[in-house]
Amino acid sequence: MQRRFDEELKTLKERLLSMAGLAEQAVGKSVKALVDRDPKLAGFLRNDDAAINQLEVEIEESCLSLMARYQPEAKDLRMVAMIFKIVSDLERVGDQAVNISERTLDLLKEPLLKPLIDIPKMAVLAQQMLKDSLDAFVNQNAELAREVCRRDDEVDHLNDEVYHELLVYMAQDPKTITRAMDLILIGRHLERVADHATNIAEDVYYLVKGTTIKHHLAGN
Amino acid sequence: MQRRFDEELKTLKERLLSMAGLAEQAVGKSVKALVDRDPKLAGFLRNDDAAINQLEVEIEESCLSLMARYQPEAKDLRMVAMIFKIVSDLERVGDQAVNISERTLDLLKEPLLKPLIDIPKMAVLAQQMLKDSLDAFVNQNAELAREVCRRDDEVDHLNDEVYHELLVYMAQDPKTITRAMDLILIGRHLERVADHATNIAEDVYYLVKGTTIKHHLAGN
Repeated sequence: MQRRFDEELKTLKERLLSMAGLAEQAVGKSVKALVDRDPKLAGFLRNDDAAINQLEVEIEESCLSLMARYQPEAKDLRMVAMIFKIVSDLERVGDQAVNISERTLDLLKEPLLKPLIDIPKMAVLAQQMLKDSLDAFVNQNAELAREVCRRDDEVDHLNDEVYHELLVYMAQDPKTITRAMDLILIGRHLERVADHATNIAEDVYYLVKGTTIKHHLAGN
Repeated sequence: MQRRFDEELKTLKERLLSMAGLAEQAVGKSVKALVDRDPKLAGFLRNDDAAINQLEVEIEESCLSLMARYQPEAKDLRMVAMIFKIVSDLERVGDQAVNISERTLDLLKEPLLKPLIDIPKMAVLAQQMLKDSLDAFVNQNAELAREVCRRDDEVDHLNDEVYHELLVYMAQDPKTITRAMDLILIGRHLERVADHATNIAEDVYYLVKGTTIKHHLAGN
């Protein structure tokens, strides 16, 4: 019984990692479409999101089915409950990628406002946080989980810089306002991706250590 | 055994409703602080958020404990899993109220930009959606759940109006930019509250009907 449960749990974790991979790639693609000014790539994000949404439904069902059939205890139950939670975060990461691609399609109607430096940096950081939060989950690595949470500050800091820099553009030239707004909102979408990674990492820390590092930082 | 489970589930639902009440009130207070220009009320939101966060941890633990001790099947299991999910949404609603109060404290440093009409309207709608999504859960009311999802469009529409109106302010007078940005972001925070209510309602619909109405609308 326990062996069959372990095998099914292993399969479930693999599917979770596929879903996380898709979500992470979607974020990467959405920012690539922005940087390369590629409306086709931006348009494709809807398909990626549909695949991510489908996986959410399937993995949730598998979690419930696993719980119902094996009635796992203690640690195993927490593990399945954790997967159940992580898929919600990943699904919302997919939504953020769609939001970024929509802002991008809007931005592509006008010439480039400024070279993009901090936004691609934020994307790389947020993607790595997402990857590491899942790694921390799979390997039950509390230290890595804690480190992911720390890195959230870096993303917040970059987002503040993006915000203040673009406010200056707006103030100097009202013609830049809509483009600056789109970029500010893209910054916020990336910040939310990092928040989702942080949520996952906080839960991993709790799962492994039994104490919370949650809510030490303001949510945004 | 089933009777004791039912009793504990009832208690758990009551605590969920308390948490939902707190989250809903926090949103109301954050917008009241904005409308009344009341920095003290805005400052208090941190305390409300701490109480909401504490409830999240406690209710999650109760869910896991209930699952471990009673190993509920089918419908009962789904019910507990659903509570487990709802608390995450409610916790994030609390975060949105804090975000609104932070923007408000920023706004209070300058004179009022414009009379607030749509933002308080959005707050009332989002609060009602939250309330109704929980009502739909407790009463297993799929129709009410579906209606909550529909109302999300109204909030999105108001948010678009807020956004476009404030863009005009910014374009006409750069001195309004920081205030307009704060109001735009408050609009988005309220929109996210409505999104959380919609998430809950979608899950309720699925719980009752076994089919999904999810992902018909773009997430934001």
